[in-house]
Amino acid sequence: MTDFAATKALFDLPEGVIYLDGNSLGPLPKAATTRVSTMMTEEWGKMLITGWNKAGWMQKSTAVGNRIARLIGAETDHVIMGDTLSIKVYQAVASALEMNKGRKVVLSDNGNFPSDLYIVEGLLKSLGEEYELRVVDPEAVSENINEEIAVLMLTEVDYRTGRKHDMKALTAKAHDVGALTVWDLAHSAGALPVDLAGCKADFAVGCTYKYLNSGPGGPAFIYVAPRHAEVARPALSGWLGHEAPFAFDLDYRPGRGIERMRVGTPPVIQLTSLEASMDIWDTVDMQALREKSIALCNLFIAEVEAACPQLELASPRDGSQRGSQVSFRFHEGYAAMQALIARGVIGDFRAPDIMRFGFTPLFIDEDDVRGAAAILKDVMDNALWDCAEYKQRAAVT
Amino acid sequence: MTDFAATKALFDLPEGVIYLDGNSLGPLPKAATTRVSTMMTEEWGKMLITGWNKAGWMQKSTAVGNRIARLIGAETDHVIMGDTLSIKVYQAVASALEMNKGRKVVLSDNGNFPSDLYIVEGLLKSLGEEYELRVVDPEAVSENINEEIAVLMLTEVDYRTGRKHDMKALTAKAHDVGALTVWDLAHSAGALPVDLAGCKADFAVGCTYKYLNSGPGGPAFIYVAPRHAEVARPALSGWLGHEAPFAFDLDYRPGRGIERMRVGTPPVIQLTSLEASMDIWDTVDMQALREKSIALCNLFIAEVEAACPQLELASPRDGSQRGSQVSFRFHEGYAAMQALIARGVIGDFRAPDIMRFGFTPLFIDEDDVRGAAAILKDVMDNALWDCAEYKQRAAVT
Repeated sequence: MTDFAATKALFDLPEGVIYLDGNSLGPLPKAATTRVSTMMTEEWGKMLITGWNKAGWMQKSTAVGNRIARLIGAETDHVIMGDTLSIKVYQAVASALEMNKGRKVVLSDNGNFPSDLYIVEGLLKSLGEEYELRVVDPEAVSENINEEIAVLMLTEVDYRTGRKHDMKALTAKAHDVGALTVWDLAHSAGALPVDLAGCKADFAVGCTYKYLNSGPGGPAFIYVAPRHAEVARPALSGWLGHEAPFAFDLDYRPGRGIERMRVGTPPVIQLTSLEASMDIWDTVDMQALREKSIALCNLFIAEVEAACPQLELASPRDGSQRGSQVSFRFHEGYAAMQALIARGVIGDFRAPDIMRFGFTPLFIDEDDVRGAAAILKDVMDNALWDCAEYKQRAAVT
Repeated sequence: MTDFAATKALFDLPEGVIYLDGNSLGPLPKAATTRVSTMMTEEWGKMLITGWNKAGWMQKSTAVGNRIARLIGAETDHVIMGDTLSIKVYQAVASALEMNKGRKVVLSDNGNFPSDLYIVEGLLKSLGEEYELRVVDPEAVSENINEEIAVLMLTEVDYRTGRKHDMKALTAKAHDVGALTVWDLAHSAGALPVDLAGCKADFAVGCTYKYLNSGPGGPAFIYVAPRHAEVARPALSGWLGHEAPFAFDLDYRPGRGIERMRVGTPPVIQLTSLEASMDIWDTVDMQALREKSIALCNLFIAEVEAACPQLELASPRDGSQRGSQVSFRFHEGYAAMQALIARGVIGDFRAPDIMRFGFTPLFIDEDDVRGAAAILKDVMDNALWDCAEYKQRAAVT
């Protein structure tokens, strides 16, 4: 069993803050700063160019990928780090489309994170007019999976509401009609147990600066199922995905398996920060995390519904249908969130009216939940959001 | 005038090492570690998610881009940081091809860095069989610029030999026949003055971990000429390139000008490291740098040719035709470079037989050049390269 009081002590959390936004940017692991400083002075500073081999910089992308693999149920050596999530979405969807050449439709839902839709929109515009991005309601995804669909691209957990898709059932339905799947795990990796192999997912992508606490702009990851790993053509065919990058051949030959999904030079400083967080994650039992996460979310819902009748639950009530966040709708949600933040409870706002709270058991406990609910009650009871300072920026977002 | 003895004191250079590989990975600016530590503890640690606004993380990509703009002769607000160089090549070439729809040929040369060729190969495979990547000898580029060419994509300075293309003349010739240009400045930015605006370049890209000393995996940059900035469609259309990223609209609308070339979340930790180096670069006069660079390179050529008749100059003898590096051919170049590195002179090797030495005036001086040449003479006179330990890895690269 994971001792969550012990993991909480490993994060640098500012005094007087209840941080319910680890689902947007995870907090600083206490060990990360020293880890990065040491990498900079002892590796970059002293080894210079030889650090690529001597300090194992070039291997970090696969080594860290394998540590994330455990959290998302991926086979060893089938996850690799690099780039941003949007780039990894592009890689995955481009590869999947090419593996399903006869079909021209990518199916997604309007609860998907907009960047995933934008990226596919851009990709399809490049590929030609015969391609279509079909965006349906989340509830209508299943009924729209048919033999026109080349690729089903979904984010497992909705970034606004926390509503969770059934990865196993939707993947099976996609496979039944000959479609491939691309799963975005932005709000899943580190939030709940994922079983990519068990679900027979084809491609998956995710980021590390949310639940995985790598720091702002930390690298993304991509998973390619073993059965596709030697088949998928990387549309973004950079030199580090080449079979022999340092042969400097003029022609591209894809590297072995997941290695071909590398593009350019890996962000070693950001990867080093991520390693400090992975030292914590390596100790975490994902089932225990899930139980704690659901308990924290349920407690928050109960406290807020009892105290704040003005707020309407926007997340599924059933914990098994939810990620690791709870959202409430409120017509002045932006201003209310500003009022909360001013009082030390940090959540975030998503247009048009969603107040979003992430519950991350590694550093959030029951006292935090009760404390946050009490401050939210104060903001609501006394209309503390009704203040020009808090409202003025609402127009901007 | 820039005081290069003063800039040298700002880098953390290991005792007993002459570092002639700043053209591959720049050394650590002494201020970088503290700068990054402070960003991590005071910004990420204390501000958490609010750092995006409070600490100006979101603005770093354009703020740093503007500091690089001065070094490469770009107009203000037309350079933006992010991703890797390979990704930026993809963006630039994809945009340029779409602006020249009637044509299907990308012209490049076999002295280009292979990743640029691989990336375009991959892009064209996605776009369709009618597209062609035409790769000619560097000397034959000019005569192959004709009305078939959609995009001329060149690296200004050859990564192996340091041979420099005439950016102004080739861009003019490309424009004369209706082609657009994409210039890779990997071995130009911080190596010599570049005049993108004066040359009327259309697109340019580059990296920062070489001459710009951002550290391993530092972010790349992209330039789009003002006349194209509101026209170019970003093929990699991520959310941060959207006109209003935090509106979370379902449809993509490109952001204003260079902003649309953003893709995903910027790598704030790596950008912070780069800022420490840019504090040094802000003080550098690029003409003075160029004079010093040519003088150092000329001195090295003279010393080595006098001392090591076994080596054949692979770089242009005329400094104005060269970047900021000198290369020599030697049949046992790999082993000889290992022998040199073991004796504290760090250069690098590029297959099949190139020994490459970068001269970076910010931290390399005449004493370093003479010292390196003397050790190279020792390695050659005494065949110190003829040793199994140094030769064994040659087969691998």
